[in-house]
Order: sequence, then C-alpha cells, then structure tokens
Amino acid sequence: MRPWRFTRRDPRPDDVVVRVTHCGVCHTDLHAVQGARAGDLPVVPGHEFVGVVEAVGPDVTRFAVGDRVAVGNIVDACGRCRSCREREESYCLEFPTLTYGGVDRVDGSRTLGAYSTEYVVREAFAYPLPDGLDPAGAAPLMCAGTTVWQPLRRYGAGPGVRVGVVGLGGLGHLAVKFAAALGARVTVFTTSAAKADDARAAGAHEVVVSRDAAAMAAAARSLDLVLDTAPAAHDLGPYVEVLDMDGTLCMLGIPASYEVPALPLLVGRRRLTASGSGGTRDTAEMLAFAAEHGVVADVEVLPLERVQEALDRLDRGDVRGRFVLAVPGATA
Amino acid sequence: MRPWRFTRRDPRPDDVVVRVTHCGVCHTDLHAVQGARAGDLPVVPGHEFVGVVEAVGPDVTRFAVGDRVAVGNIVDACGRCRSCREREESYCLEFPTLTYGGVDRVDGSRTLGAYSTEYVVREAFAYPLPDGLDPAGAAPLMCAGTTVWQPLRRYGAGPGVRVGVVGLGGLGHLAVKFAAALGARVTVFTTSAAKADDARAAGAHEVVVSRDAAAMAAAARSLDLVLDTAPAAHDLGPYVEVLDMDGTLCMLGIPASYEVPALPLLVGRRRLTASGSGGTRDTAEMLAFAAEHGVVADVEVLPLERVQEALDRLDRGDVRGRFVLAVPGATA
Repeated sequence: MRPWRFTRRDPRPDDVVVRVTHCGVCHTDLHAVQGARAGDLPVVPGHEFVGVVEAVGPDVTRFAVGDRVAVGNIVDACGRCRSCREREESYCLEFPTLTYGGVDRVDGSRTLGAYSTEYVVREAFAYPLPDGLDPAGAAPLMCAGTTVWQPLRRYGAGPGVRVGVVGLGGLGHLAVKFAAALGARVTVFTTSAAKADDARAAGAHEVVVSRDAAAMAAAARSLDLVLDTAPAAHDLGPYVEVLDMDGTLCMLGIPASYEVPALPLLVGRRRLTASGSGGTRDTAEMLAFAAEHGVVADVEVLPLERVQEALDRLDRGDVRGRFVLAVPGATA
Repeated sequence: MRPWRFTRRDPRPDDVVVRVTHCGVCHTDLHAVQGARAGDLPVVPGHEFVGVVEAVGPDVTRFAVGDRVAVGNIVDACGRCRSCREREESYCLEFPTLTYGGVDRVDGSRTLGAYSTEYVVREAFAYPLPDGLDPAGAAPLMCAGTTVWQPLRRYGAGPGVRVGVVGLGGLGHLAVKFAAALGARVTVFTTSAAKADDARAAGAHEVVVSRDAAAMAAAARSLDLVLDTAPAAHDLGPYVEVLDMDGTLCMLGIPASYEVPALPLLVGRRRLTASGSGGTRDTAEMLAFAAEHGVVADVEVLPLERVQEALDRLDRGDVRGRFVLAVPGATA
C-alpha cells in the first residue's frame, strides 16, 4: 500500500461529494489487496465509511453541505429488477456496482474505494448518519453491520429466538450486539477461550469454545439460527448439529463451496444458506436501529497512513472488533 | 433374496395385524440388501405397503377386521418429544422405529419388513386406505409419496409456485404428480430425453435435459423450489443456479455430504436443505389428497417371489415409476 493521488469525477446531478473522515477495514479489502493482479491496479479499497457532505449535485434532495453521511459496499444498481424494486440492491439481478473494484454504470470507469480523502456517490446509495452515532464506530456498520443485520432480521432474531454467532471478528461482534439488542438469546462460538469476556461484553449470553468437543455436543440442537462469520473455510458439520429442528445456518464468509453432512441436515430438516450485504432498505433500517440502541462497532482507530499496519494485523488476526482508518484532521 | 419363514409377534393391545397384499420396492431396500453385513441378517425389506386387517388388539379403535390399511416406513416413535407432539414422528428426537432394520420399542427385537405376507403394527402408525385408491398404486405413496409430499407442502407448492423435480424415478414421478395436482408449475430435470413423455404424462409443464448446458442455462433463476430425488451423488451447482431469489433446493437422496458452490448460494440467497419421510400428520393428509385427486404411483407389479428380479432391474434403472410386489392370491 502506498499513497496515490487521483481526481474523483465531477459530481453528476444526483451525486454527493463526501469528505471521508473514517473508513473501516474489511476482510474483503485484505483479499482485494492480496489477490490483485496487474490488470486490477491500482486498487483503492474501502467500502464502509462515513464523512461529511462537501458538495451536492443539483438534483440531490436528501443531503446538504455539512451533513454527516455514511456509505457502504455498493454504490449503484440497475434500479429496475425485482431485487432493486424491493430495495434489495445488493441482490440486483444485473449485479450491483461495488464501491471499489466495480464498474461505474455511467462512464464505465473502475470504482476506487474510500481509503481516500474523498468519495463521490449517487445520493440513493448514501445514508444520513444518525445523530449520536460515533463516526469511527459507525463506519463498520456500513458493511459488517448491514451484512449481519440482514440475516438476523430475515430469520426472525428477537425474543425467544436462539442465535449462534461463529467468530468474534468484525462481523461477529456486530452480530452479537445486534442480536442481543433485538432481544435474541445469543451464543458465541469461538476457537479462543480468551475471547469469552469480549463476547459477553458484546452481549453474548453463552460462549462455547468450538474446539471443546464436549461443549459442542452439549450445545446440540440448541439454536434456531447460526450466523457463521468465520472468513476461512472450516468444517460446517458441528454448526449443523447445534441447530434445532428447522434451524438455519447462514454463511457470511465466501470460500469456493460449502460442504455439509447429509444426514444431520435431513434429520433436523436444517437449512444452509448464505447472504451478502444489505440493500438500501435494510441498511437504513439498521442505521436507525443502531442509533436507537447505541450499537456501534468496537474499533481501533489508526490514521490513514498506517493502512499497511492495519492490513497486516488483520491478516494475522491481531484485531479486536474492527480497524478503522481516520483521515488526519478530518472530523465528522 | 430367498424365502424365509418366521412368525410375527402376537398382537399387543394396540396392534393391528395386516395381511400384506402389495409392497413397493424402494431404493432404500436395495441399499439395505446390498449393504447388509453378517450381523444384520436376515434382512426383510419393505416399508411401503397396503393390505387388509386380519386381527386387531383389544385397544384398537380405528380399524376393524377386513379394513384396507396402509403402512409406511416408520412404525413407532417416542411419542413425547416436540416432533412427535406435532405428529412429525419421522423427525422424532429419539429416532423413530423403522419398519425394517429398526429396534422395536417394546421388546427390543429387530423389525422385519413387508416383503412378507403379514405385518403387525401399532394402530397409530397404520392408515385407513381411502376408497378408490388402487392398492398396488397406493403402496408407493406410503414412503415415496409422503417423502415428496412433505417438502412440497412445507415449501408452499401450489398455484403461482414454480417447482423443479430432479429425476423421474419412484420419488420423482410422484413429486411431479403431487406438485401438478397442487397447482404448481412443474419442470422436470432428467438425464434422458426419452423420459420427456413420461414426465409430461405425470403432469410436468416443462422438461429440461440436464446434460444440455444451454437448456440448463436457459432455466437459470426460473424456480422457487427444486426437489432433488436423484439417488446417486451428483453436482448440485446446476440446481442451485435454476433457483430464483430465496429459492430452496431440497435433497431427498442421502449421500455422505452435500457440496454447493458458495457464490451462487449467496447471490440468490438460496437455501439447501434435506428432508426425510412424513410423519402421521403429513401422511394422512397426503392420502386424503391422493384420494381426492386420484394420485397413485405408476407401477409395474411383480409377484413377491420375483423380488430379486425387481431389485436387479431397479439397480440398473430399468423401471418406470415403481416396482410393487404383490402377494399371490391376496387382494385388498
């Protein structure tokens, strides 16, 4: 990673120009940097950020200069398909435009992310940052937050529902916070007993060390929904077994494929699914809920120029919650 | 397979003694025979049968001597767990007692199936065979029928719902008949173009030859539910792709594990699940529906002594619909 100077597009009529103040560091960013080929360069990662509006196009109605604003991992979509009409643009049938590494739908240019001082975005994909939300803690809500919020809502997390969360990283700790705030009973599965205190601080009612076979066996058939946030491929069998009848295992990490044992799926009529980030409907709902319940990410804030350090530490798992890069001197 | 003479238990107070007239030949029977180890012998297969009541225990209230009766693949369950209380005994948390190869809950003996002239069963797991249903065609309803009925109902097969059926064997052809009778639009996936006429005769609206990549691509995102009845392990990726947003792929065959590609699961928020046979609630409902809509299996009836021929031909796929073994001289 090294500094690079470039110019954003002039704002189109429905664009908002955002002075970036904080950008979360997502595992996707790490993969994008590590996996970049020559033809992809330059890669500018960053797709969960907050900032301040510094200019608006003439057709913009929801934002004014000086407003606090938040943007997530998609910045455009076809707007016509069934998913888009339901404001589930992350499932756009023509594929949404990603905040970086995507292709702009107007000029065909490659999008460049928010590890940057400025971003220009269609207002339809920008969100007012609610009062009271700390901008550093709110930045990770825009990808990690909406990614866990969507399945929690879809599968009914709330009072009387037992939710498991695999992994306590950026997504996992936000899943725990949201699920607990929604009123669900939350069990965290972690490989590291040392994370038990963090899990409970985030709102977990139970912590199971996943390497403890007896503890896993004791958790059999105890949950209605498991959100698996572990980024690396791993054995899914144990997380099928902890589901009760008709329970759902929802994968949020994306290896090439998922493999599940057949008989446990059958005898519990359990379901395996996967989900991506949320569209504008879910993301707006998530932000309103976060503001009402005071949910933000646990963050370690580093100045933007220390991005390499953040990526290196994320790569070796040396992070609590989420790294957030702050643009020096920029405040929201 | 060879003849073997044995004596059934004397009827307990809640038992029904059934003179078997017809028993379907299920793939499970083939696996049980092929996979039998020395300690399992003798294996008497057969778990979808109809017959006539020839005696009843003193506590039996729903059956009288001479009644037509049908029995499926489970003959007992704990009766206390949540699944049993919901009459989903096939998902009994203590595991149901299988019609053959199971362990009797009263005397601990191994159950022996209905490739036989007689069967003794708790009345709670016997069903009156509705008037008007041909006994040979009805026998396969008791396993194959209830196995496809349950997920069709659970996932809402009916008008406006697009159902795919993979395979046109015993389960598959009944899935097509039931789905069509429920009012769903039915697409059959078959490896053999020669089965197209049979598929349409069963009620299919579309037939896709699964080896035709262009036809499979044309079917992308076109279905809400796919029931995969293929007994052998195969690539599930194509059947994930034919599901529309939030669609369900329900597996009815049981290899060791299922593997699905991650990204297609995610971008369509599709679900993979598996299901077994139906409990008493679903099975009774299925029989009533079958009688009302005239749904029975397409069968080739062979006398019981030709069981080896039936198994051999099933093993090489030389069957249309289902083989049914008839006990010579026995009529329902």
